[in-house]
Amino acid sequence: MHKKGLLGQLIQNLCCLPGVGPKTAQRMAFYLLQRDRNGARNLAETVLQAIDKIGHCEQCRTLTEYPFCEICADSSRDDSLICIVESPADVWIVDQATQFKGCYFVLHGRLSPLDGIGPDELGLDLLEQRLATGSVKELILATNSTVEGEATAYFIGEIAKKYQVQASRIAHGVPMGGELEFIDSGTLSHAFKGRKEI
Amino acid sequence: MHKKGLLGQLIQNLCCLPGVGPKTAQRMAFYLLQRDRNGARNLAETVLQAIDKIGHCEQCRTLTEYPFCEICADSSRDDSLICIVESPADVWIVDQATQFKGCYFVLHGRLSPLDGIGPDELGLDLLEQRLATGSVKELILATNSTVEGEATAYFIGEIAKKYQVQASRIAHGVPMGGELEFIDSGTLSHAFKGRKEI
Repeated sequence: MHKKGLLGQLIQNLCCLPGVGPKTAQRMAFYLLQRDRNGARNLAETVLQAIDKIGHCEQCRTLTEYPFCEICADSSRDDSLICIVESPADVWIVDQATQFKGCYFVLHGRLSPLDGIGPDELGLDLLEQRLATGSVKELILATNSTVEGEATAYFIGEIAKKYQVQASRIAHGVPMGGELEFIDSGTLSHAFKGRKEI
Repeated sequence: MHKKGLLGQLIQNLCCLPGVGPKTAQRMAFYLLQRDRNGARNLAETVLQAIDKIGHCEQCRTLTEYPFCEICADSSRDDSLICIVESPADVWIVDQATQFKGCYFVLHGRLSPLDGIGPDELGLDLLEQRLATGSVKELILATNSTVEGEATAYFIGEIAKKYQVQASRIAHGVPMGGELEFIDSGTLSHAFKGRKEI
């Protein structure tokens, strides 16, 4: 009965966060109201500002509040190397994990004709325009290693060929520290086929 | 480098939520911006409204946006029975789990002299005023079964005695469905001492 009211509404709305169910939302609501009203105010104001101002980079389509993201705007980065990823989160992951100093291009998805996601939805027209300028030397295809991710990588590889731009796919195989015993057979067979001379 | 900006700030502020670290905050930020901007706006607006309007019930000290909470304002509930709990969350837990149709009193903590939490911080003066009116028949002490929770229950029991109000403590023992093998010895010894004839 007393789940109505503003507190009930707060708990219900907290459930829109990914991975947050009613119990967690309840704990969060009580925490914010009892322990950290300042933090809650900052959070709410930042959320409003972010959804208002953050859009897509005009060049690489990642999330940014500026016309061009910080990577595209950074003149010290090599814009002749473009790493293709599925989501803005992947940009962060690749940038944190690797020494890559080129630029990115975010698809915001992967080819999935049944869901109506074709080349246009992935911004591939924008990518083609960039390839057509002749300033791009290499595309690094870092889409996920799923069926759709592989198909998307193949499709973009064909586009690259058309513009005579080199395209490479990130390596797949046994993860570092992985024991063969625990690797699935698909990965292991892939790792065998992709073996390199040492 | 590109962790600065509004997106970085959003991720940082999401970390103020309990149980949310940088990785989860990152996932939440991307989710809100890419999938659910409406939900994010509703959430932010509800948070602002909640921290602005939600205060303590004048009678039982639980969280509410009204002068009196929905339970205290509900004339169908028996206000001669008062269940004492440590936090507003406990009010919900007790109310959802039991058939209790009385009212509550929220301590917002437990006696902890070393942390400077004495009877006044727990609102026990307010509780005493209510006992002094003579309208209260029973206090049900539902503080947690910790050292401080027990001490707080004992302390409030003494106050009840002073006003000749009956006080009871919720039962402690083996949880329903609990197997003896997995119960700690303290609980088991408590359950033995508190055994009842069947």
